[in-house]
Amino acid sequence: MHDPLRPSEQATAGAALIGLDWGSSQLRCWLLGPGGVVLAERSSADGASRLVGGAGEFDAALCRVAGDWLGLGLPLLACGMVGSAHGWREAAYVACPTALDQLHRHLAVVQTSTGAPLHIVPGLLDDPRPGTPDVLRGEETQVLGLLAGDPALAGGCTVVMPGTHSKWVSLRDGCVTGFRTRMTGELYALLRQHSVLARLMPDQPGEHPAGLNLEGFDAGLDSARRAGGADLMAQLFSARSLGLTRQLPAQALADYLSGLLIGHELLAGLPGHEMLAGLPGHEMLAGRVDPLVLVGDAALCQRYCHALQRLGCTPHSQHSHSAAAGLWQLAAQAGWVTP
Amino acid sequence: MHDPLRPSEQATAGAALIGLDWGSSQLRCWLLGPGGVVLAERSSADGASRLVGGAGEFDAALCRVAGDWLGLGLPLLACGMVGSAHGWREAAYVACPTALDQLHRHLAVVQTSTGAPLHIVPGLLDDPRPGTPDVLRGEETQVLGLLAGDPALAGGCTVVMPGTHSKWVSLRDGCVTGFRTRMTGELYALLRQHSVLARLMPDQPGEHPAGLNLEGFDAGLDSARRAGGADLMAQLFSARSLGLTRQLPAQALADYLSGLLIGHELLAGLPGHEMLAGLPGHEMLAGRVDPLVLVGDAALCQRYCHALQRLGCTPHSQHSHSAAAGLWQLAAQAGWVTP
Repeated sequence: MHDPLRPSEQATAGAALIGLDWGSSQLRCWLLGPGGVVLAERSSADGASRLVGGAGEFDAALCRVAGDWLGLGLPLLACGMVGSAHGWREAAYVACPTALDQLHRHLAVVQTSTGAPLHIVPGLLDDPRPGTPDVLRGEETQVLGLLAGDPALAGGCTVVMPGTHSKWVSLRDGCVTGFRTRMTGELYALLRQHSVLARLMPDQPGEHPAGLNLEGFDAGLDSARRAGGADLMAQLFSARSLGLTRQLPAQALADYLSGLLIGHELLAGLPGHEMLAGLPGHEMLAGRVDPLVLVGDAALCQRYCHALQRLGCTPHSQHSHSAAAGLWQLAAQAGWVTP
Repeated sequence: MHDPLRPSEQATAGAALIGLDWGSSQLRCWLLGPGGVVLAERSSADGASRLVGGAGEFDAALCRVAGDWLGLGLPLLACGMVGSAHGWREAAYVACPTALDQLHRHLAVVQTSTGAPLHIVPGLLDDPRPGTPDVLRGEETQVLGLLAGDPALAGGCTVVMPGTHSKWVSLRDGCVTGFRTRMTGELYALLRQHSVLARLMPDQPGEHPAGLNLEGFDAGLDSARRAGGADLMAQLFSARSLGLTRQLPAQALADYLSGLLIGHELLAGLPGHEMLAGLPGHEMLAGRVDPLVLVGDAALCQRYCHALQRLGCTPHSQHSHSAAAGLWQLAAQAGWVTP
């Protein structure tokens, strides 16, 4: 049998970098070769939030996931919560606006038990005025990966990364000019699992069921739009009262809630959204407003794409997670690999 | 020793009504005498949401809490979730606008095992246009109790009942013209207990600690005001980023979240809130806008009172729970007791 921790020589031929996307709940590890091509990929559940015992635990988790790759003598580069204050080593936030091609100058570094250093990508801080700071870690690397695939976007765009904590990142001339975090996915999960709203919803597996109930989702989007993105706490209760009054069937209520929350997120994030209503995608690209790009889980991006279109805004493009490409890009900027 | 289920003859002298506020999680029971005076009070944890076995369970819970009072031959009147579709007997919602002095014409009735009927107060439905229905049960009775104590408010006021599901009830000429539910308390509890925001907050007992951290609470109110009551999901994340960046100390974060949510509730509920900024209470009473009245838990009302004043709006008055007085009022309107 094939030992997953002992890849064939073929797989490691040309390997130039070990990249890690080390988030709160998951650790993903790539062996990257020329041009950033993914030669092999591994993952584990050793997310940073589970490793509460300090450096030794992080080191052991790295050895478990990377295994024999560590013997190849390659540079090691990680992004994500591994660089938080509760991670392996804090990589201090870099303040916005910040040029993405200079991020490699702010890497933190730890010594691993193999003797090789592991470099850690810093997160970003957006703190334009007192009282409204925002932070991200890991998404900066995904944005770098996105730009590696479509350099024209560096000129100006809004990158929307939907998820537990949706990130809206504004790019201009290769700089992150600012960003905003919206707790859409976490709020959905809390309300779906623990709130009074869940009582009228039939049990369904998973956070976002693969099958979208379009009646419910569109009704939620329309409710958000009617309220102009305001009074969310009253709108949430409508996921109960629409069920109690049988204006929506029980099986539509979970996606009504999803549509409501995503609708509020989009209405808050889209600048001058009334103006955008009906504006076709090519006009956005023609420079009237920055193009909007979706990055993340395909099914979730599809949900956002539908929501955007219903609100009159066509996204420019949709991309899957891009941390591996971003790590390669950073390593190239640091001079460790040939671009 | 005194048996709590066997009150002295003195306590039952003049008793004219057994009133019950039968909510989701709690059952309160009063023995009421002339003028609605509370002669005795009992309560139990037999809330409607725990009695899933049907009528027999409700009947047993009634016998447990009311005990020997049931032998006094008094009329029995209950409000709250006992009248929901999952309660003892559904008391169909009465649609707004509705005259509060006519509610007694819509009572539902069940036979108890003692042979006496129990009447149940209907909830209210506010469904001004398709897609935005709202419902309440129990609060209609509290509003009746409020008006019994201050009849002038029936002319026109907004009654704010803060709690798990805050209710904002609009009154005009003795009618409930409409109302709105905001899930402020439930959202606070979910985020305080289960979300990523809780990780930076020191453990504290209870949902709303008695001691208010004013620095945090006021900062939350100010954040809500700066955002004009919009983009709540981004503002929620600031309860994390303000902690991470040490712009707020850890012990201020829970009340920052409380202030944020209450601020968003108030900004959504107050009509033309920008106009209200700085408007003193007596001008509201003088008829420029309807007076705002708080009804509920004293510590929570005090929190709302502070928040309202910081937003430039002085509430007219503050009252404790008023269901017992409302039940007496309904019984008087039904002709069962002398007003």
